[in-house]
Amino acid sequence: MSNKRNIKLLLAFDGTEYAGWQKQKSARTIQGAIENKLRIMTGEELFLQGAGRTDAGVHAFGMVANFHTEANIPCQGFVKGLNSMLPTDIRVLEACEVETDFHARRSAKTKTYWYNFSNGPVQLPTERLYIAHVFEELDIGAMQNSLVYLIGTHDFSSFEGAGSRNLEFSGRGAVRTILKASLETMGTGGNQRFIITGDGFLRHMVRNIVGTIFEVGKGKLAHSDVAGILAAKDRSAAGPTAPASGLFLKEIFYS
Amino acid sequence: MSNKRNIKLLLAFDGTEYAGWQKQKSARTIQGAIENKLRIMTGEELFLQGAGRTDAGVHAFGMVANFHTEANIPCQGFVKGLNSMLPTDIRVLEACEVETDFHARRSAKTKTYWYNFSNGPVQLPTERLYIAHVFEELDIGAMQNSLVYLIGTHDFSSFEGAGSRNLEFSGRGAVRTILKASLETMGTGGNQRFIITGDGFLRHMVRNIVGTIFEVGKGKLAHSDVAGILAAKDRSAAGPTAPASGLFLKEIFYS
Repeated sequence: MSNKRNIKLLLAFDGTEYAGWQKQKSARTIQGAIENKLRIMTGEELFLQGAGRTDAGVHAFGMVANFHTEANIPCQGFVKGLNSMLPTDIRVLEACEVETDFHARRSAKTKTYWYNFSNGPVQLPTERLYIAHVFEELDIGAMQNSLVYLIGTHDFSSFEGAGSRNLEFSGRGAVRTILKASLETMGTGGNQRFIITGDGFLRHMVRNIVGTIFEVGKGKLAHSDVAGILAAKDRSAAGPTAPASGLFLKEIFYS
Repeated sequence: MSNKRNIKLLLAFDGTEYAGWQKQKSARTIQGAIENKLRIMTGEELFLQGAGRTDAGVHAFGMVANFHTEANIPCQGFVKGLNSMLPTDIRVLEACEVETDFHARRSAKTKTYWYNFSNGPVQLPTERLYIAHVFEELDIGAMQNSLVYLIGTHDFSSFEGAGSRNLEFSGRGAVRTILKASLETMGTGGNQRFIITGDGFLRHMVRNIVGTIFEVGKGKLAHSDVAGILAAKDRSAAGPTAPASGLFLKEIFYS
């Protein structure tokens, strides 16, 4: 591996038409689409390592991935070449050569997700793909108050979706650290955005947190119930999984 | 007609998958889709009068339309009934009963359009359907300066797309009044938005104005050239038609 170049890509995508990041035999995926074009460009059977697996329908502004190659293509050539071949719902924002041991997932220190939502009687058609919608009236103050219980290091089993956990993470079980969790107004339209930063996220964790906080907003849970839900370490204690459309992988921080 | 109720609808739509407002035999249109559902609801062969004809791919937050009916359906019933039957890329925001002589197009006093665009090397996938993109560096100040020439009452022939003009408007030819034309920053992402209000718009007029101002931004035209382009009354004097995706019919004002 040491004689190969290690290329890091910064990616943005619209997840609407994809079955998520991870390659699958019979479904369109982000990893599959990019790997396919990289193989054409390099003539190599390379593997594209992502920073994580986004679910079907989830979007990204700042996904990071890396691959090892012997191809003598300049970094800007990967940006232009991939963007000329990929559909417009996947874009390479940057490419750069990094140290051999950089690993898009293992080297990541923190990830930041955005979850966008609107609230009202009717969802605007031009928002439906990227902003989730809640019909019921929401108590935004109560929702903001519920976020404090999430900050810090906790066992997030109550917010973990069913399915396989990454083997590399099994040592720490469902323990993760949330560094920031806020709820802010998006621009001038009155829509809202959760901003959640952590050292790692379990499967469906952001969407399960958001779905639970929507229950707080609707008055079905008290904001302080979130503490008990965390302590229960039981998925059935928490609320439903919020829709994928509102979720964006915004940024990944590397030391 | 006088014994029929006159119902005014406020509509929002995502124009991406439609061949524009106006009904066509073999293409999906906004008017066609709504009329079809209204006929099912009322059992009547009614006609849905729009405030104007949006082009293929153009979006709306505040399209207005009206229809006459003998059906005894409450206004809120039209909102709920249509929204339950229509695809999610068309939504009825409001319905109300208005005076018999209200006519969505003839009664309109002013219309406001938004034209959204981003500027940079790569277009974000999750913006591509609703925000046009310009690769070349733009001089936003020059673009803002060019807008002043458009304000007021002018013959806009230089910005009129080829095709039929509404017969009702033929008396005033291509003379229209622009009341407001501004270029503002959209939210926090650095994207820009033209906001243009006028008493009426010719075919492709907003997109032809925007396409011309993009030429100013790229330095291919001076901002003061816009005065000469208007005076020429010749479509070939102006710039290209900007893409439909950035255009939103934002609001229609009735006295």
